[in-house]
Amino acid sequence: MTATADPEAAANELMPLATYLGSVLRRLVALPPLDLDLTQAYGNVLAGDVTVPHPVPAFDQAAIDGYAARWEDIAAAGRAGSHPSFGSFEGGPRPVRLNVVGDLGAASWRPVRLTPGACFSVAAGAPLPLGADVVVPVHWTDQGMANVEVYHAPKRGQGLRRAGELLAVGQVIAHRGAYVTPAMVAAIASAGIGHVVVRPSPRVVIVATGDELVDVGRPSQPGQIVDANSHALTAASVEAGALAYRIGICDDDPEGLRGLLEDQTLRADLIITTGGTGTGPGDMVRRILSRQGAVEFTDVALYPGAALGFGTVGAEEVPVVCLPGDPGAALIGFEVLVRPVIQLLAGAEPVFRPSVRAHLLETISSPGGLREFRPAHVAERRGGGYTVQPLAGGPYTLSGLAEANGLLVLGERVTHAAAGSTVDVLLLDRRR
Amino acid sequence: MTATADPEAAANELMPLATYLGSVLRRLVALPPLDLDLTQAYGNVLAGDVTVPHPVPAFDQAAIDGYAARWEDIAAAGRAGSHPSFGSFEGGPRPVRLNVVGDLGAASWRPVRLTPGACFSVAAGAPLPLGADVVVPVHWTDQGMANVEVYHAPKRGQGLRRAGELLAVGQVIAHRGAYVTPAMVAAIASAGIGHVVVRPSPRVVIVATGDELVDVGRPSQPGQIVDANSHALTAASVEAGALAYRIGICDDDPEGLRGLLEDQTLRADLIITTGGTGTGPGDMVRRILSRQGAVEFTDVALYPGAALGFGTVGAEEVPVVCLPGDPGAALIGFEVLVRPVIQLLAGAEPVFRPSVRAHLLETISSPGGLREFRPAHVAERRGGGYTVQPLAGGPYTLSGLAEANGLLVLGERVTHAAAGSTVDVLLLDRRR
Repeated sequence: MTATADPEAAANELMPLATYLGSVLRRLVALPPLDLDLTQAYGNVLAGDVTVPHPVPAFDQAAIDGYAARWEDIAAAGRAGSHPSFGSFEGGPRPVRLNVVGDLGAASWRPVRLTPGACFSVAAGAPLPLGADVVVPVHWTDQGMANVEVYHAPKRGQGLRRAGELLAVGQVIAHRGAYVTPAMVAAIASAGIGHVVVRPSPRVVIVATGDELVDVGRPSQPGQIVDANSHALTAASVEAGALAYRIGICDDDPEGLRGLLEDQTLRADLIITTGGTGTGPGDMVRRILSRQGAVEFTDVALYPGAALGFGTVGAEEVPVVCLPGDPGAALIGFEVLVRPVIQLLAGAEPVFRPSVRAHLLETISSPGGLREFRPAHVAERRGGGYTVQPLAGGPYTLSGLAEANGLLVLGERVTHAAAGSTVDVLLLDRRR
Repeated sequence: MTATADPEAAANELMPLATYLGSVLRRLVALPPLDLDLTQAYGNVLAGDVTVPHPVPAFDQAAIDGYAARWEDIAAAGRAGSHPSFGSFEGGPRPVRLNVVGDLGAASWRPVRLTPGACFSVAAGAPLPLGADVVVPVHWTDQGMANVEVYHAPKRGQGLRRAGELLAVGQVIAHRGAYVTPAMVAAIASAGIGHVVVRPSPRVVIVATGDELVDVGRPSQPGQIVDANSHALTAASVEAGALAYRIGICDDDPEGLRGLLEDQTLRADLIITTGGTGTGPGDMVRRILSRQGAVEFTDVALYPGAALGFGTVGAEEVPVVCLPGDPGAALIGFEVLVRPVIQLLAGAEPVFRPSVRAHLLETISSPGGLREFRPAHVAERRGGGYTVQPLAGGPYTLSGLAEANGLLVLGERVTHAAAGSTVDVLLLDRRR
C-alpha cells in the first residue's frame, strides 16, 4: 500500500502534472496500424485519411418519392395556384397533366428515357430517367397511376440527387487520428469501402501489488486489504478503449514481480501496476523497478496522487505505468496519466474529457502547490449552464468517487474556491 | 429505400417526438436481472442498490506512512517550534523522543499494544496498535529507526482511519438504475463484494432491407445502393451499450423478411430494421409488418426522419423498431428513439446525451412543425462556453454527420436561428 499524499508536505521537488505528462507522452509512439473489416473498426483510430473512391450516389437518382419529369413540361403548373392539400395560391389553379409511362424503384437498373409529356413514378433512390431534371413530390399531384395531374412545379433540379452529390470522388470523409464513430461507419460504407486501416486497441495488463491484498468476496481481516484497484482499473482501461487483461494480485516478492512483468510483455502494449510507489519501506514496486533502472518514479504535484512511475519492462521495452495503491489516487492517476497514454498508443491525440465551467455550490479549500482533481456532482441548470457540488470527504472517499459524474479541477495556485465562483469541471461518462 | 422527409410537407397528422417516444417507452420493460461477477458487470445497470456489508477499513489503520503513537506522549512536542523541513514555528523547538518498538506494514496482522513512551513505525494501511491515537507523518520526525525524535505533534486522531470510516455498514454505495462505472467498481470491490445483480446488455439484431442494397466493398451500379446502415447501426448499438448482431441485407420478400425476423427472436431483445418505412409502393417493411398488425408506423414530427415503426415480432413479442433507409434519417432515428429504448431495456432511465448551450456561428433555417437534429461542430470557447457551427448540407450529408461532434436541436416552433443566438446542442461521444 502506498502512502497517500499528505497535502501539507510542501516538498519542493514536486513536478507539475503538465510537465510530467508531457515527458511521459514524448517517450511513446502509436501502435503499428492494421487493416480491419469496417465492422470491426468501430472505436479504433484511423491511421490515415479515408477518401471517397467512387461517387455517391453512383448515378443520378430520385431523392424523394414522386414523379420524375422534364421541368419544361410542368413549368406551366406555375408558382401560383391552389390544390387540395396546400390551400390557396395567388391566382387560380393551373394543373398540368402528364402520362405515367412506368414505375421505377430503388432497385430498377434498366436505363430509361423520358419523352416529352411523359413522366415516371419514382421511389426515393431510384435511378433518374434520362432527360428528367425534376422530381415532383407525390403530394403536389393527384397521385395518378396512368396519368398524373401536377398542381405545382418545383424548381428545376429539385427532388433529385446528381451522381457524386453526397460524396465526391477524392473527398476526405474521415481523418487520420479520429476515432471511428457510427456516423463515420455510415459515410465510409456508403462510399463502398469495406476495409479501413486503423491502430489496434491497446492491450493493457493490470497488476495489483501488495502482500496485504486479498481478493473480493470476503470481509478483510487485520493485515488484509481487498484488492479493488485491479478490478476498477480494468474497467477504466476498457472505458478508455483498451483490451484489458486483469492479472489480479501479485505479492511483494521481487523475483515474482519481475518474472510476472516479463511474462506479460508477450501480450501487453502497456502494463499498469498499482501499489507500492511511495518511498516507505513497504513500497516494494518502487524499490524493485527503480533498481532495474528502466522505471523512474516521480513525485508529481497532483492531489490525490503521491508518486507515479513510468518506464519500460523487458527487451521489448513494453511501457509500464505504476500507480499508487490508494483506490482514489489510483483512479485519479489513471485519469490524468494512463488515459492519455492509452489514447496515444491507440493513435489518437491525447485529450482530457470535455470540460464545462460550473457554478460552485459549496466553498472548498485545496492544497496549494498541487493540482487537485476532486469528485463532484455536476447538474445542468434550467436555462443553461451547470452547477457543481463537491462530494463530501474529498477525493479519498470511495463512495464520493462512485457517485461523482465530474471532477472539479483546482489548479496549483488555488487554495480556496468560494461558493458562487465559477470553476472547471471535467465531465465523466456516466451514461451510455 | 424510404422517402426522405420533405420538410415542406406540412402534414397535419405528424406526432410530436416527445409524445411518440413516451408512447414507445411505456410499452417496454427492463430485461430480467442476473447475478454477475464484478469484473463482468462494468457497463451494465444495477438492478438494485448495493449496500456495504462490512466496514471499510475492517480495522483501525494508519492512513499515512509514519509513527503510530499515544497522543499524550507527543503532545508536548507542541504546536510551536521549528524543525529542519518546516522552518520556524513560534517559540523554540521542543522535540519529544520515543522508542520505536516495531515496524508495522499493511500486511501485519498480529495484534500489538503500545506502552507509554513507545511508538511503532507504520506504513499506510497498517493496523493501528492498540492504544495508539495518532500517526505522526515521517517528515515531522528525524525518521529514526530505534528511536525517533518528533518535532511537531499532529492533532489527536490525525493520520489514521477508524474502522468503517471509508465505508460504513449499510451505506448505499451504488444505486439501482446506475451504470456500473470504474469508480463504482472500486467502491464495490473495496466493500468486499464480488458479485452484483445487474440487467444484461440488450442483444440487438440489425437488419437492412431493400432489393436495391448491396454489400460494401464495391462501387454501386444503377439499381444498387451500398448498405451502410447495418454497419452504422451495429456500431451505434454497441456505443449505446448493446451486444449487437449484424444480419446484413434482407430482400424485400414478405416471406423472407417475416421468417428472418421470427428466427431472430430467439436471440434478440430488440430488432432494428432500416428501410421501407414510408408510404411509397416500394416501402415493403411497412406493408409487410403493418399487415401482421403487431407493428405500427407513425409519421413523427422529426427532421430528418419521416416514418418510424414500433411493435413486436413473434409469440415472444420481441420489440422491433423500424427506421428509415436514408442513412442520416436512420442515424437520427437511432439517436432519438433506439438509444432510449436500449437504455430502458438495460435497466437505466432513458436520457438524452449531455447538452450544452452554444453560440451559433451561422444563421440557419429549419422546417416549422418538425423537431430538427442537425449535425454540427461544437468547440469550447476560451474563457468558457461553447460555439457551434452547423455542418454544410444539413442532416442528409453523410460527410457532415461523420464530422459532427454534436447535434443542434431546433424545436418544432423554430424556423430560423440567427448567427449569434444561443442554441441547444447535444454532445456526441467523439473520443474515448
